[in-house]
Amino acid sequence: MDLTLVRQAIAQGNAKFGEAVRKGDGAAIAALYTEDATLLPPDSDMIKGRGGIEAFWKGGLQMGIKEAVLTSVDVSGSGDFAYEIGRFAIRIQPEGQAPIEQKGKYVVVWKKASDGAWKLHVDIWNSGPAVK
Amino acid sequence: MDLTLVRQAIAQGNAKFGEAVRKGDGAAIAALYTEDATLLPPDSDMIKGRGGIEAFWKGGLQMGIKEAVLTSVDVSGSGDFAYEIGRFAIRIQPEGQAPIEQKGKYVVVWKKASDGAWKLHVDIWNSGPAVK
Repeated sequence: MDLTLVRQAIAQGNAKFGEAVRKGDGAAIAALYTEDATLLPPDSDMIKGRGGIEAFWKGGLQMGIKEAVLTSVDVSGSGDFAYEIGRFAIRIQPEGQAPIEQKGKYVVVWKKASDGAWKLHVDIWNSGPAVK
Repeated sequence: MDLTLVRQAIAQGNAKFGEAVRKGDGAAIAALYTEDATLLPPDSDMIKGRGGIEAFWKGGLQMGIKEAVLTSVDVSGSGDFAYEIGRFAIRIQPEGQAPIEQKGKYVVVWKKASDGAWKLHVDIWNSGPAVK
């Protein structure tokens, strides 16, 4: 595995994720995941498969997620799998309300598809420390 | 990668984790992680390195964690890395108080050490749905 290339692919994937959130395009977010990906949102059961993942993110966009910034902290792996540890910052602004920023951290397992594209295969996150 | 063997190694690791929790042995929990592992507890910053991970789990044991049951849902990987999606149930009983059970889900990246042993290298979890 050429880690430099994988890091580039992951950085591009994260940039596309941010772009899709800004556009409010849930289908474009879901297309970044493998068909059989697993999403593990906090305070929820796990969601398996791209259809459920698209519904989850469409719900998040409807709730007012306007921006998501994903920053890799550590990437490694082997063969067709890489893991990424990262930090996120999301801005949520429900209609007519003040924006809220939430920060936290995540682990994504990326999988190389048969066409060579790296996609999110497992995605879990949780909150950072409470802001005082 | 012989996934059957890796699943066995992970199941054994999880059993050892549960045993170490029951014994209240934070050092034995930490010994299941790689030296440079990353722990990502909810509502906390990430913790890097076995020393900090030992301190975290010793704190959890002092707070009253009495039991942890870890159940693999999905294991895959390549080369020296495997990822595990799982569910946990922990029982917390602070001195003189009634026990609380918490359930949730986790993703662990396991890494094969040079001696062939599989150790936790990245460990992140979050809560399941609220119990009604």
